[in-house]
Amino acid sequence: MQLHSNVVAELGSGIRRVAIFGTGLIGTSIGLALREGGFTGSILGWDPDPAALAAARARGGVDPAVVGEPDEDPFVCALAADLIVLAGPVFSIAEWLEQLAPVLSPSQLVTDVGSVKRFLVEQVGSLYNGEAQPSWLPGHPMAGKEQGGAAHAEASLFVDSTWLFTGANQDAPETLTQHPYAAEWLALVERFGARTVTLSPARHDLLCASISHLPQMVATAFAAMLQQQFSHEFAGKDNALMGMGGRALREMTRLGASPYSMWRDIALANEPAVAAAMLALEQELIHLRENLKTPELREMFVQANAFRVALSEADARRHA
Amino acid sequence: MQLHSNVVAELGSGIRRVAIFGTGLIGTSIGLALREGGFTGSILGWDPDPAALAAARARGGVDPAVVGEPDEDPFVCALAADLIVLAGPVFSIAEWLEQLAPVLSPSQLVTDVGSVKRFLVEQVGSLYNGEAQPSWLPGHPMAGKEQGGAAHAEASLFVDSTWLFTGANQDAPETLTQHPYAAEWLALVERFGARTVTLSPARHDLLCASISHLPQMVATAFAAMLQQQFSHEFAGKDNALMGMGGRALREMTRLGASPYSMWRDIALANEPAVAAAMLALEQELIHLRENLKTPELREMFVQANAFRVALSEADARRHA
Repeated sequence: MQLHSNVVAELGSGIRRVAIFGTGLIGTSIGLALREGGFTGSILGWDPDPAALAAARARGGVDPAVVGEPDEDPFVCALAADLIVLAGPVFSIAEWLEQLAPVLSPSQLVTDVGSVKRFLVEQVGSLYNGEAQPSWLPGHPMAGKEQGGAAHAEASLFVDSTWLFTGANQDAPETLTQHPYAAEWLALVERFGARTVTLSPARHDLLCASISHLPQMVATAFAAMLQQQFSHEFAGKDNALMGMGGRALREMTRLGASPYSMWRDIALANEPAVAAAMLALEQELIHLRENLKTPELREMFVQANAFRVALSEADARRHA
Repeated sequence: MQLHSNVVAELGSGIRRVAIFGTGLIGTSIGLALREGGFTGSILGWDPDPAALAAARARGGVDPAVVGEPDEDPFVCALAADLIVLAGPVFSIAEWLEQLAPVLSPSQLVTDVGSVKRFLVEQVGSLYNGEAQPSWLPGHPMAGKEQGGAAHAEASLFVDSTWLFTGANQDAPETLTQHPYAAEWLALVERFGARTVTLSPARHDLLCASISHLPQMVATAFAAMLQQQFSHEFAGKDNALMGMGGRALREMTRLGASPYSMWRDIALANEPAVAAAMLALEQELIHLRENLKTPELREMFVQANAFRVALSEADARRHA
């Protein structure tokens, strides 16, 4: 884990109580990363599923329940926190942003981890960051696993990943809230080992559609196709088909294990951008298929090679 | 590396001289795996590129050149060997199978590593395995890397992989040649750490199209599409786009680095099966895209989840 001693020095005692709403993989990992990074305040938690909250507590990502405190009430939990981290699926984030806005005070900051940003800003952006309103810092950690839940959470989940932030105001899409906890949260996120990047909600959704949502949809389609075509062959013990597939098959279908519950929200909330990215890939596949026997195939390999060189160079620069 | 002592005991002194034609990643790795597995005979090598042969020698995958022996002559090299391993691209394998058939003796066995089998059997199957003809054992190690060349070769390349074999006779597509070196080569391949599987050339090509050739084409199309859409953004030092992409982006495009030179042959020789597999995936992607906002999306995730469960179970059984 990257530890920036200068960042540590900057951290005031501003954020003393964090409330994590949604204690699955991301929420619990945030709690664990806070502790690993030396955060000494309280970490409250709430989840619609009491078992998920209990699992997060068992992992140490959320503090133990306090006797006599009604920790099952999300509003009590939110009102007690300086920073509320909304870490559930996108539509639950939208709902909580809407429900919390009228009850929180201007001294409180909300941030979220939603994979879609424009939809949220359009829905609830006007409820935050104005005079006498609480503040909201839209965020999106580009980290995850194909298996969710607190059981798979780890403090190192965000190491060497990118954590995106956008403005919440449609008229100033790249202007982050000036709430003092916002700078502190960015510093904490960098202590988790992540790089922070700021962009507009619309651009966020467009880029994420191509480099994050599209890989998921391709893996789902690929795995679903194989299941339809070959599932009758999986039963046998001497499973040649499964054994034949190597690293490429496993990589291409890994995200096929991802839960529908999470991706339904993303597919709905970012539908135009995801559909456009899928259409672009479909057209590229058709072009490749129609050119399997022509020299045009070489051009496509040359372009793909160039992309991988650029990616390797970017990785090398970042680790230099 | 898996070492089967019973297999070692079975290995006679039948194969004493192996000639490897094509000393790139696969050919050199075979030489290294032979040595690692205790093969004490000679390993001759030939490559159309003298530098590639020199690199294989430097790595120890091919024996040092013998002074006075014209090692640059592939026919001299082939005639001196008990077993000839054709490890170049598919069309070079076809060409060598055709050119070697009239000069080799019935005591000699040829095997190959081509990723396409039906095309080869159709082209040259009749030249082998008959009375007074040399023998051919069509083979295909399901192993590789996105970077070719002797420099990337390793003895462990085949560990835990599957090495497919087919018959060479269209009328008996699953009947392997009965040449005594064939059983010995299968035993050696298992000593490399690979599982051996026998199937027909047609079925081989169909399965490989879906689980090996299709992942390559998807990675190439994906990387080429990103290169076209976003390459103008790659130049900057502060490359948010590249940094944003995580494991999924890297996995989905990893094979985009693969060389056209190798895949041109596969695309040409297995075009019908590859095109059919691509079309099936395209249709699945279209179906998914058109259902991003409908409950049908859940069905596709359920199917994809089921495929990954079956794959995990198969892996667990194999490693049990």
